[in-house]
Amino acid sequence: MTSAAYDSNNIFAKILRGEIPSHRIYEDSDTLAFMDVMPQAPGHVLVLPKASSRNLLDADPAVLAKTIPVVQKIANAVKEAFDADGVFVCQFNEPAAGQTVFHLHFHVIPRYEGTALRPHSGQMEDNAVLAANAEKIKAEL
Amino acid sequence: MTSAAYDSNNIFAKILRGEIPSHRIYEDSDTLAFMDVMPQAPGHVLVLPKASSRNLLDADPAVLAKTIPVVQKIANAVKEAFDADGVFVCQFNEPAAGQTVFHLHFHVIPRYEGTALRPHSGQMEDNAVLAANAEKIKAEL
Repeated sequence: MTSAAYDSNNIFAKILRGEIPSHRIYEDSDTLAFMDVMPQAPGHVLVLPKASSRNLLDADPAVLAKTIPVVQKIANAVKEAFDADGVFVCQFNEPAAGQTVFHLHFHVIPRYEGTALRPHSGQMEDNAVLAANAEKIKAEL
Repeated sequence: MTSAAYDSNNIFAKILRGEIPSHRIYEDSDTLAFMDVMPQAPGHVLVLPKASSRNLLDADPAVLAKTIPVVQKIANAVKEAFDADGVFVCQFNEPAAGQTVFHLHFHVIPRYEGTALRPHSGQMEDNAVLAANAEKIKAEL
């Protein structure tokens, strides 16, 4: 089913193991959510299962069933925290679809009328801004 | 949580009730999948829960947990059926995020290296093409 095996040295696996830092906003036994360091809009969050899968295609369906309610919870929190008009949820499978890190993750991105998204994998955001945005979202959880 | 109430006369509610036709590729007691009539690429499928919600923000988490494994199943079938390099999954909440029909749905779209997506809500596809593409995907389920 997958195009390639799971590589446990991908950057999100390292974040899950705490080997590299992230601005975490939510965690439970199965799921982690943290700020995207190259946000397409302020408040851009990534939600990922702790279980290893390359992407949606090879994930355990039982894991997906636990991840998606967290995506929902984060989407509502982000909408409130950033007073957004809408929320875009997306998930890339394989490089042709835009996937750049090969551990399953869902993007949750606030949207506003008349404001275009910044490109995926664009500019790195300042750490202090990410920390402040993480706090705003945590306040809505 | 929602910006507006659910309107049971939306076009996907009518498709779910069988009041208007669609090219169905998968159905179970909780979920329906059919061809998007304005595909962003050949093989573009919509997956939706039968239960009413405007979008992800107001959905029942238990319903979401049943929908996402079907999204996965369809993503794998679409990738095989269209020999795609990748699969893009996306879900729009509210008009500012691109939502045009107000019954929760996930887009499942085949992607290819070096080929851009057509715009969302673009050109209507020919019925015979949609029917043939639906058969291709059903053969992989």
